[in-house]
Amino acid sequence: MPVSLASLAIQLGAELDLGSAEDDQGICDVAALEQAGPTDLTYLDGDKYLSRLDSCRAGGVLVNRELAAKARQHFPGPLLVVPQAQEAFILAMVTLRPPARRPHLGVSPHAVVAPSARIGGATNVHPLACIGERVIIGEHCDIHSGVVIGDDCVIGDGVTIYPNAVLYPGMQIGSRVIIHAAAVIGADGFGYRFHNGAYLKIPHTGTVRIEEDVEIGAGTTIDRGMVGATVIGKGTKIDNQVMIGHNCQIGRHNAFASQVGFAGSTVTEDYVRCGGQAGVSDHLRLGKGCTLGPKAGVHVDVPPGEKFHGMPAGPDKEQIRIHLHVQRLPELRKELQALVQRVALLERQLAAETGTGPSAAAA
Amino acid sequence: MPVSLASLAIQLGAELDLGSAEDDQGICDVAALEQAGPTDLTYLDGDKYLSRLDSCRAGGVLVNRELAAKARQHFPGPLLVVPQAQEAFILAMVTLRPPARRPHLGVSPHAVVAPSARIGGATNVHPLACIGERVIIGEHCDIHSGVVIGDDCVIGDGVTIYPNAVLYPGMQIGSRVIIHAAAVIGADGFGYRFHNGAYLKIPHTGTVRIEEDVEIGAGTTIDRGMVGATVIGKGTKIDNQVMIGHNCQIGRHNAFASQVGFAGSTVTEDYVRCGGQAGVSDHLRLGKGCTLGPKAGVHVDVPPGEKFHGMPAGPDKEQIRIHLHVQRLPELRKELQALVQRVALLERQLAAETGTGPSAAAA
Amino acid sequence: MPVSLASLAIQLGAELDLGSAEDDQGICDVAALEQAGPTDLTYLDGDKYLSRLDSCRAGGVLVNRELAAKARQHFPGPLLVVPQAQEAFILAMVTLRPPARRPHLGVSPHAVVAPSARIGGATNVHPLACIGERVIIGEHCDIHSGVVIGDDCVIGDGVTIYPNAVLYPGMQIGSRVIIHAAAVIGADGFGYRFHNGAYLKIPHTGTVRIEEDVEIGAGTTIDRGMVGATVIGKGTKIDNQVMIGHNCQIGRHNAFASQVGFAGSTVTEDYVRCGGQAGVSDHLRLGKGCTLGPKAGVHVDVPPGEKFHGMPAGPDKEQIRIHLHVQRLPELRKELQALVQRVALLERQLAAETGTGPSAAAA
Repeated sequence: MPVSLASLAIQLGAELDLGSAEDDQGICDVAALEQAGPTDLTYLDGDKYLSRLDSCRAGGVLVNRELAAKARQHFPGPLLVVPQAQEAFILAMVTLRPPARRPHLGVSPHAVVAPSARIGGATNVHPLACIGERVIIGEHCDIHSGVVIGDDCVIGDGVTIYPNAVLYPGMQIGSRVIIHAAAVIGADGFGYRFHNGAYLKIPHTGTVRIEEDVEIGAGTTIDRGMVGATVIGKGTKIDNQVMIGHNCQIGRHNAFASQVGFAGSTVTEDYVRCGGQAGVSDHLRLGKGCTLGPKAGVHVDVPPGEKFHGMPAGPDKEQIRIHLHVQRLPELRKELQALVQRVALLERQLAAETGTGPSAAAA
Repeated sequence: MPVSLASLAIQLGAELDLGSAEDDQGICDVAALEQAGPTDLTYLDGDKYLSRLDSCRAGGVLVNRELAAKARQHFPGPLLVVPQAQEAFILAMVTLRPPARRPHLGVSPHAVVAPSARIGGATNVHPLACIGERVIIGEHCDIHSGVVIGDDCVIGDGVTIYPNAVLYPGMQIGSRVIIHAAAVIGADGFGYRFHNGAYLKIPHTGTVRIEEDVEIGAGTTIDRGMVGATVIGKGTKIDNQVMIGHNCQIGRHNAFASQVGFAGSTVTEDYVRCGGQAGVSDHLRLGKGCTLGPKAGVHVDVPPGEKFHGMPAGPDKEQIRIHLHVQRLPELRKELQALVQRVALLERQLAAETGTGPSAAAA
Repeated sequence: MPVSLASLAIQLGAELDLGSAEDDQGICDVAALEQAGPTDLTYLDGDKYLSRLDSCRAGGVLVNRELAAKARQHFPGPLLVVPQAQEAFILAMVTLRPPARRPHLGVSPHAVVAPSARIGGATNVHPLACIGERVIIGEHCDIHSGVVIGDDCVIGDGVTIYPNAVLYPGMQIGSRVIIHAAAVIGADGFGYRFHNGAYLKIPHTGTVRIEEDVEIGAGTTIDRGMVGATVIGKGTKIDNQVMIGHNCQIGRHNAFASQVGFAGSTVTEDYVRCGGQAGVSDHLRLGKGCTLGPKAGVHVDVPPGEKFHGMPAGPDKEQIRIHLHVQRLPELRKELQALVQRVALLERQLAAETGTGPSAAAA
C-alpha cells in the first residue's frame, strides 16, 4: 500500500515539487538512485551525482535545497526539497520499512542458562545461546543464537549481541552496546616471556570494559587486559575484523574502519578516526580528533587534530610532499644527467681556454 | 589395497614408463613431492622443481609430456606422462581418497528449526544448527553444526555452510555456494551520521545476494546494503578473513586472496583478482580482468586488464620504475655530490683565470 | 583478606624496603602502575617509566635490583627489590588471583557427542559443544560451549578450546594446545584451476597438525593442506586474526602478532617472529630466528637471523638507508637547483670570458 508523496513530504518536512508528474502516485519503498523504480523514493547524495539523475526512474527524489534547481534540469519527476537529503531519506526508510517489532521470546527453552544468572525483563535469550554462572543481563536485550557469555559477565540494558559472538568470563558491557556476529571479547592478550628457548604464557586476569552506545563489528576481537581493563569508550564505533590489543584505552566517539589493528596498551583520546587496515604500535597515544589514513602504519604518538598516513606514517602534508618528490624522481634524474653534460662541456671549454687538459675532478 | 600403476595410468590417460622399477608395485595414496613414499603417487609442478626429483622416493610421478625427458634424468622410478600433471594428480586424488559419501542425517533432533522453515529433500541440518522463521533451503544442502540462519533467508540447492557461520535475516544464497566456518553474511554496514558530537547509526535494511557457485572463506564478513543489496557475482571465490563492505557489487569469477578489504559501494567487473591484504576504497570501479598486487592500497578506479600495486597503488610499470629510482637514490646522491665538487673546481679555476674571487653564486 | 608485604617478599624472593611506610599494611591485589591503589602491588617495567612512580599510589612496587636506588627517589613507599620485576609480578598475580579451579563438569548433558567419540578422564565438554564421530580427546581438556570438532580429530592432553572455535574433520592437535574463540582450523585451502572461464575447486584432502604447547588466537584461520599437512611447530604462539595458508610448515617457537598473513606452502624455521599485519607470499622460506617488522610485505626468502621490513620488504639496514634518502628528497632537489644556477652562472661567465654567446648545452 503506497504512501502518498504529499503525506511523505509533510512527515519529512519537505517541499514537494511534482514536476512533470501528473498526479501523486505514491511511494512503496526506498532504493538507491541507480536501482530505484517508479514506486521508490531515493535521494541525491551531493552534486557529484547530479548526472546520474538523467537516467533515474524513481517515483520521487529527495534533494538538498541548494541543489534543487540543478536537480530539476536532470530529472523531470517529483522532487522533495529538504535541508538534508540523506537524513530525510533515513527517516523515510524507517517509515516505509518499519523495523520488525522485537519478539517476546523471553528465555528460549533451547538456551542453556546457568541457574545463578540473572536475566532482566523483556530480554530475549534465543535458542542455543549459552549463559554462564552469575551473569547479570539488563532489560530489553537480545542475546542471539550461538552466543556464549562466560561466567560473571555484567551486561547493561538494551544490548544486542548477534549470533556466535563470544564473551569470555568477567566482561563488562554498557547499555545499548551492539556486538555483531562472531566478535570475541576478552581473549587473552598476546603476552609471553621468553625463557630457556621457549615462550612462557603470561596469565591474563584483567577484563574488557565496553562503555555505553558502542558498536562492535563482526569478527572483531578485543583482548582482555593483563591485570587491568582494556577499555572501549562511550559511543565508539568499530567495524568488522578489527583487533584491539590488551590494555588499550580507546577514547569516546572513536570510529575505526575494518581490519584496523591496535597493539597493546595504546591510548586514544576522543574523536579519533582510523581508515581501513591501519595499524598502530603498542604504548602510543593518539591525540583528540586525530585521523589515520587507510593502511597507515603508526609508530609514534599522533598529536591532537593531526592527520597521518603512510608507512611509516607521518603528517599528511609531509607525506604528500615526499610522495610528489618520489613521483618526480625519474625527472630529477634526467635533470641531473643534463647538468652533468653541461658541466662536462664547461670543463672542456675551460680546458681549451686555459690550454690545459681535462681537470682531475672530471675523471 | 594398492591400485596398480597400470590401471591408474589407463584411468588418467597417462603413458606409463616404469623406468628402473622391476614391476608395478601399485599406489595407495597421493602426496606432495617431498613427502611422498614408495606407495604414494606425486606430481612435478613445473620445471623449477626438477632438482627436487633427485631425492624423491615416490612410487610414481606424474609429469607433463614436455618435461618427461628431463624428469627421467632426475628420477629413475615410474613416470606417468600426461598433458597436464596437476590436473591428473587431482583426478588421482579423487580416486585414491574418495570423498566421504554425504550422510543421510536429515534434520538432526538436536537442531533448532523454526516451524515455518522449509527444508529441501536430502538436505542435512546438523546438530545445534539454528534455522529461523520462513527460511527456505533447497535440496542436497549441508547446514553444519552451530550455523545460525536468520529469518527469511533463501538458500538454493547443493549449498554447504560450515560450522558456526552466520547468516543475518533475509540473505539470498545461490545454488552450490560454499560458506566456510565462522563467516558472517549480512552484518550492518559501517554507516553513521555525526550529529551533536556523537555517531548516530544509519539503519541498514538491505540484504546480501550471493550468486551460484561462489565460495566464501572462513571468518570472511560481507555486510548488508543500506537499502539495496551487496552482491557477490556468480563463480567468485573469496578466501579467509576478507571484508566486503556494504553495497559493494562484486562481479563474476573474481578471486580475492586472504585478508583483502573492500570499503563500501565499490564495483568490480568480471575476472578481477586481488592479492592478499589488498585494500580498496569506497565508491570505486575495478575494470574487467584487472589485478591488484598483495597489499595494494587502491584509491582510484582501475582500468580493465590493468595491473596495480603499491600504496597508493598505481600501474605496475610505473610503480616498478619509481621503485627502481628509489632504490638508486643513494647512488644519485653520490653523483650529485661528485658534480658539486666538479662545479666548485670549475668555479675556482674560472676565478683564477679571470683574476676574480669566488663568485657570489658559489657562496 | 590482605597478604602481608613481608610474607609476599619471602614468597617472591624479594628484599623488602618499607621506606616511609610506618608498618606493613598488606596487599590485596595486583594492578598496573597507573591504576594501582594503596592495597595493590605493582611493578616498574624498566627505567623509562621511572617518572611515573612520582604519582604512584601503590601499596608496594616490585623493582629490578639495579633500579632500586633510582626508584626510591621517585617513590617513598614500600619497594620489593628482585632480580626480575615482571617475573615476580606474574608470580604475585598467580598468588593473589588464584586461577579458578577447573570445574568437574565431565560431558555436559547439553553437549552433542557422537557415540564413537572417546573422551579422556577429567576432560570437560561444556554445554552446546559438538563432537563428531571417532574423535579422540585426551585427559584434562576443556572443550568450551559452541566448539565444533569434526569427525576423526585427535586431540592430546590438557588442551583448551575456547567457545565457538571450529575444527574441520581429521585435525591433529597436540597436548597443552590452547585455541581461542572463533578460530577455524582446517578450512579448505584457496586453490582453483581456471578452466573455460571459471574457477574449478581443487579438492583439499590434507590436514592440519598442531604440535604441543601451541597457542592460537581468536579468529585465526589455519587452512588444511591439499594432500599433506599444514604444520604448526611446537611452542609457536599465534595472535588473533592471523591467516596461515594451506601447506605452510611453520617451525617451532615462532611468534606471529595479530593480522599476519601467510600464503600457501611457505616454510618458517624455528624462532621466527612477525610484527602485526605482516604478509608473506607463497613458497618462501624464512630462516631461523629472522624477524619481520609490522606491515612487512615479503616476496623473497629471508636469511636466518635477518631483520626485514617495508613493502616490498628488505633488510632493515637497507630499508632505513633508503627511507632516509627519501625523506631528504626535498633537500636533494634544492641542492640540485642551486647547482643548476651555479652552472648557469659559470656558463655565462665563461661565455663573457671567451666572448662567445651562451653555449648550446645551456639552452
